[in-house]
Amino acid sequence: MPRIIVEVMPKPEILDPQGKAIVNALPHLGFTEFSGVRQGKRFELTVDGEVTEEILQQARKAAAEMLSNPVIEDVVAVRVDDEGDAA
Amino acid sequence: MPRIIVEVMPKPEILDPQGKAIVNALPHLGFTEFSGVRQGKRFELTVDGEVTEEILQQARKAAAEMLSNPVIEDVVAVRVDDEGDAA
Repeated sequence: MPRIIVEVMPKPEILDPQGKAIVNALPHLGFTEFSGVRQGKRFELTVDGEVTEEILQQARKAAAEMLSNPVIEDVVAVRVDDEGDAA
Repeated sequence: MPRIIVEVMPKPEILDPQGKAIVNALPHLGFTEFSGVRQGKRFELTVDGEVTEEILQQARKAAAEMLSNPVIEDVVAVRVDDEGDAA
């Protein structure tokens, strides 16, 4: 079944305590390659049938109105994933 | 600055109460196109300099050992995003 992937990240100017906690913990576990970490959200919306342009438009609307908080978050991607439940 | 994107989702057999809450709320807001929703996480790891195969390997290791809980989550993607802070 096709899925629409929605990716949401905290806005650059917004503090991200979870990302901060991870970036501080990484060196203690031997990971010294990464200077910053931001944590956001990834949603998979399952569509029964074909993903039409209209359905994609509805997904963009849901992403903007419900899956993200526009005050503190950006929707960075709304895209079709045709691979079904492949990993 | 290049970034590595890590995407983590709850395993298919694991209940996802956040996704469930969203899929139940969608019709009340006029979204009737989506039969299922799963919520996962998206991380952006900032790399100073070029993303080598070695750094990508370290990112895969961090994704498996730290950014995900292998009992309940799958790492679905570890990929390079060269666009810097483009939205």
